[in-house]
Parts: sequence; structure tokens; C-alpha cells
Amino acid sequence: MKYISLLGATGSIGTQTLELIREHPGHFRLAALSAGKNIDLVRKIIEEFEPKLVSVQTKEDADTLRSEFSSKITFVHGEEGLIEAAVYKESDIILNAVIGSVGLTPTLQAIEAGKTIAIANKETLVTAGHLVMGAAKEKNVEILPVDSEHSAIFQCLQGEDTKEISRLLITASGGSFRDLNRDELQSVTLEQALNHPNWSMGSKITIDSATMMNKGLEVIEAHWLFDLEYEKIDVLLHRESIIHSLVEFHDSSVIAQLGTPDMRVPIQYALTYPKRLALQSAKKLDLTEIGRLHFQKMDMDRYRCLQYAYDAGRSGGTLPTVLNAANEAAVHAFLERKISFIRIEELIEKAMERHEIIRNPDLSAIREVDRETRQFVHTLL
Amino acid sequence: MKYISLLGATGSIGTQTLELIREHPGHFRLAALSAGKNIDLVRKIIEEFEPKLVSVQTKEDADTLRSEFSSKITFVHGEEGLIEAAVYKESDIILNAVIGSVGLTPTLQAIEAGKTIAIANKETLVTAGHLVMGAAKEKNVEILPVDSEHSAIFQCLQGEDTKEISRLLITASGGSFRDLNRDELQSVTLEQALNHPNWSMGSKITIDSATMMNKGLEVIEAHWLFDLEYEKIDVLLHRESIIHSLVEFHDSSVIAQLGTPDMRVPIQYALTYPKRLALQSAKKLDLTEIGRLHFQKMDMDRYRCLQYAYDAGRSGGTLPTVLNAANEAAVHAFLERKISFIRIEELIEKAMERHEIIRNPDLSAIREVDRETRQFVHTLL
Repeated sequence: MKYISLLGATGSIGTQTLELIREHPGHFRLAALSAGKNIDLVRKIIEEFEPKLVSVQTKEDADTLRSEFSSKITFVHGEEGLIEAAVYKESDIILNAVIGSVGLTPTLQAIEAGKTIAIANKETLVTAGHLVMGAAKEKNVEILPVDSEHSAIFQCLQGEDTKEISRLLITASGGSFRDLNRDELQSVTLEQALNHPNWSMGSKITIDSATMMNKGLEVIEAHWLFDLEYEKIDVLLHRESIIHSLVEFHDSSVIAQLGTPDMRVPIQYALTYPKRLALQSAKKLDLTEIGRLHFQKMDMDRYRCLQYAYDAGRSGGTLPTVLNAANEAAVHAFLERKISFIRIEELIEKAMERHEIIRNPDLSAIREVDRETRQFVHTLL
Repeated sequence: MKYISLLGATGSIGTQTLELIREHPGHFRLAALSAGKNIDLVRKIIEEFEPKLVSVQTKEDADTLRSEFSSKITFVHGEEGLIEAAVYKESDIILNAVIGSVGLTPTLQAIEAGKTIAIANKETLVTAGHLVMGAAKEKNVEILPVDSEHSAIFQCLQGEDTKEISRLLITASGGSFRDLNRDELQSVTLEQALNHPNWSMGSKITIDSATMMNKGLEVIEAHWLFDLEYEKIDVLLHRESIIHSLVEFHDSSVIAQLGTPDMRVPIQYALTYPKRLALQSAKKLDLTEIGRLHFQKMDMDRYRCLQYAYDAGRSGGTLPTVLNAANEAAVHAFLERKISFIRIEELIEKAMERHEIIRNPDLSAIREVDRETRQFVHTLL
């Protein structure tokens, strides 16, 4: 039995994790959860899964829930509550599925507490990969990827020697606007941007897919997870999202992981690693039904956010923090209909241009740059 | 340094193995070789690679070579010579790349001598898989696949638990006549049959690819190598031969091995396993250059030999021996222009129909059924 702390329980990854816990009551148990403001869903989760600790965003919601449920359940709130959920003593593994760099401190605290980390929160590695991987190494804690692409690479690397890797190929569907050129991007709407062709995901990651920033964040995430220089990390346009990523070895052999797009498969792999568990409810891949898989070169001019991510990753220091914070602020503004789609990348570019990189930043430097970048983006709205 | 006994040194797999030994003089050395009647090529191989033991088909050729070369080289001949090459004392690994069931006895003897077996000679496993795998298990000897499909599966299974496999998917290019229907097959020529779209191989395996018997033999080979029932082994038509095979696990995740068609990659993997070795001369896979990969269902009526192979494998006993011996005799007759292409499968069907299966046959029973089947096919020519 594996006891799970689920951070971001009401989001897309969170609810799919709950489906897995429901499907395998003999293997997984929800020990602690964190959520934001969707209190109705939190109530339902508590009733069904009976966690011991629940963290929500506000004190008011925590107080309300405390009055409704058994005193056996501990209710906490805010950033401190999120950390309490992350380090909850009975948990074996933390599934970090919060959105944005708010996931960083709980991750570091959970590593400190010796918990295995299943990481769906890519912003944490983008903004502070050196701190997270350094702490994990020191504490001998496993960081298991949940993103479908990184899970694919991780699966391909089982039984392999990472020194024999010549290249990672991260696949990209191309997002909602794959078939539009830059001129056509000028007039796209929020509704169009939220309509991803292959994956049903949260709104932030869906917009990141449309700008290709999601792939950029994944490149930086792969750099940290697999300890590879950026020259060995490529992106491949693959519209069907069937091959989730590939690893090329120095003997020219390529190993790939495939499947129908279903986030429960990589989530479950992180929870059962190094074993696999039968997942009856998942649709088996039928390549004869799909018929064809397509591959194209990635156009870095069409997808400028991807180029910015490579630039930020290669430059290092606090520049990835700026990239990520500017992107979070800009996407938030786009979701609130304050800016146009194409403006997202302009804001990121401006934030990166003015930044003076701090080398090897500590947590407080990262938090300061993160805060300051968001503020700068807000002044431009 | 790995010392190699190369059985079938002048064939397609043999010469590609020699290319690898040439490319990696610090890793591999040719200790012993066997060849048939291509004595001019044997001379060149001896001059370049300086093996210690050489086996050829006839006594005359062995005598001639003995008179030409240093007395430090031992020359032997015939079936006994082939066995001497297989069990040569200084060899660490036997690469068995002979054609047909003649490879069986040397393989069993090499296992007895505790040598690692790299097996390109699929007929050995088809005709006596239970004896070969039984002996390997008893002697704790590794049987490493060389066929691109089985090497692909073997690579996909590294770090995995075979109990978690739900299905193997062996890919098939479709061979020379992929786009012809059964009526059109009536009038095809030997030259057309020998023109494989993707792979440059020996003539026997090229004809086997055109009839799809090659895939049938591979299904039976996979059954033995990976200890899986036939219900878990499927064949997938994939015209580009880029995905060399796939493994589906019970969590719905699929791992595949890919590469440009180059037999040196699986040959080398068997020689360096469990490590990989940089292969500079191999062309790296560029999926953007290929653009599309196609997949189709396999039509068992169009490719009857594949159905016969499944039937023979499922029935077991001596029926796979009959399948293989009838196929070898029929393909030989086709290569000698004695029969039409479509007649190959008719002869196999007739040989299988009349056979009374012997359960759990020993080596002498297998050899007798093999001999008797070939004789029967000859009576029908």
C-alpha cells in the first residue's frame, strides 16, 4: 500500500490521480491533499477518499470544512498548509500537481523530509532545477516525472546507461494553433486557444501548449531530470501525440514510449515505479486504427517561446526563473482577457531582455526574481 | 575484448559482423569462423582478421586453404567443423548466422560448452525451440537475439518485468510483394521476389519476407525467446521498417525500438549487451526526413504462410519442424526456378497436412522429421 500526498487535488492531474486511487484501492491510499478554492469538490474528495490532512487556500475555507467533518481530519491552509500536506508523516510519495512556481517550496520541504517526489509541476524544476536536484541527490530522494514526455523518456531509460544517450527527442503536438502562421495568430481568441487537439488539460498548460512554452519548459525540465546538456535535447513536431518521446543512444538505436493520450498512464507509472500495474480502464494503443504518424521539424521562428526557453536554459542562473514568472503572469493576463495571444511572447521577451542574470541563485534570490518579474509584467498590461 | 566465433561468416549477417569487428578493433576479435563454399571471400577474411580456426563446407577446400596459410590456423570442414567453430575454446560468444536448420546442432553444442549465443539463425529456434531454450536454462547460458525485430523487443524489455507484458507487436514491412493481391502473385518472378524494399539481406530470408514466412518464423522465435504464448504475439504491417517492434505492457504503456534499417545495430547490441557501443558509421534516424510512418492490419488470408506459422506454433511438437523444413525445401526450389512463387505456400500446406505430430521430440526425432519433410517436398517438385 502506498500512501499519497496529492498537491493540487482538484486540478486535471489531481482528479486523474484520484481515479487511479479509486481503481486500485488495494495499492494506493490518499493520505493528504491540497487544493485551492474549489471547496465543493474538496468536500466530495474527503467523503470518498477519507484523507487525514486537507490543505486549502484560505483560512475561511479551512474553518468551514473543519466544522463539517470529523475531528480526525486535520484542516490547514495557505502556503504553510501546502507544506504540511507535502511533508505529511504517513505519506510515502508526494504527487506535486500544483500549477506554477508556488510548488517549489513544498517540493524542497518534502525532499528534506525524505519523501519520494512525483513531479507534475514543471515550473518547480524550471525555476529552481539546481536546488531541487541538488537537494534530491543529497537526501537520496527519487524525483519521478509525471509529464507524459518525461515519463516516456524515463521509461525508455530503464535498464539503460544514461552515459550512452546521444539525444532526447521530446515530441510536441503543436497545440491549438499548430496550423496557423504568425499573421493568423494575431487574431486568435481565448476559446480557440483552450481547444487542444489531443489532450484534455488545465487552462494554463493548454495555453502553454498553444504558445509552445510548454515544450520549452519541458526542455528545461528534461535538462534537470536527466542531467543532459541542451545540445542533446531536441523537440520534434508530432501531431498525433502517440509517441510521447524518444531517446537516441550512441549506437544509433532509438527507444520510444507510445500510447493513446491518457495522463493516467504516466501518473500511475510514477506511483508504481519501478513496477507497472494493470490499468484496465485505459484504451490500448491500436496503431492500425490510427494508420499514420506524422513528424515535422520544429520551426523556432514560428514558436518563439521555445527559442526563449532554450536561451534561458542555456544562459542559466535566474533567467529560467524570469522566463517562467513572465510566462505565468502573461498567461494569467491572457486568461483574464487583458492581453492578446501574441502579446504573451512579447511580454516574456521584454522581461528576459532587461534581466541581469544572478548566477547560482539561492531560494530567496529565486523568489525575489520571480516576484519582481511578475510585477514588471503587470506594469506592461 | 570479446572473442567471437562467427558461423556463416560470408553471408549477409556474417559480413556485417566483420564490418563491426573492423570498426571496433579494441572491442572485438574474430576467433573462429565457419563458411560454405565462398572460398575467395574466406581467404580475404583470414588475411584481414587472422582467426585461429576456420571451418568450410568441403574437405577439398579445407585442404587447399591449409596449404596456403600459416600452420597456426586450424582448418576443419563439414558439420563436425561447424561444431568445432561453435565450441572453439577461446571464444566468448557464438554469432550463429548460418541459414536453415543446419545451425541447430552447433548451437546446442555451444550451449553445452557454456558459450553465450547470439542467434541470427531463426530456423534453429523454430525447429527446436524447446531443446535450445531448455539447454540454455540448464547451462545458465544467454541466448541473445540478432534479428532486428527480436533485438528490438529485447531492448524494449531491458529494465522491465516480462510478467507485465500484455502483447508483443512484431512489425513487418510486407516484403517485395506487399502491394500485390493473390491473383497478381501468380505471375511474379524470382528477380521481383529478390528485390526487398527496405532491407538488403540474403536470398533465403528475402524470399521468406515476400511470402511472409519470415514473419511467421519470427513469431515462433519470439514465443521461445521471450517465453510468451502465441495469443500475446501480434504482427503489424509497417511499410517503412523504422519501428522494429513494440512491447505493450499491462498498464497500456508501449515501448518501441526504432532506427534506420541497419542490421549492424542489432548485431552489435548482441555483441556488447548489456552495454551499447558508439557506432559512428550508422545513419542516425531522422523522423522529420521520413515524415510519416504507416501501419496496417495484417491480412492472414493474403499472407497464408503467416497463418501456417501460427498454426504450427500453436500445435507445437514436430509441426514447426515440418513448417520450417518444407519452407526451406520449397524456397530452395523457387530459387532454382523449379517452382512458382505461389507454389511455395502450397508445398508447405501439403507437408503440414499429412504430418502426424510427435510431442516433445528429441534431437534425433527432429532431424528425422526434418529430413523426411524435405524428401516429401522433393517428390512434389
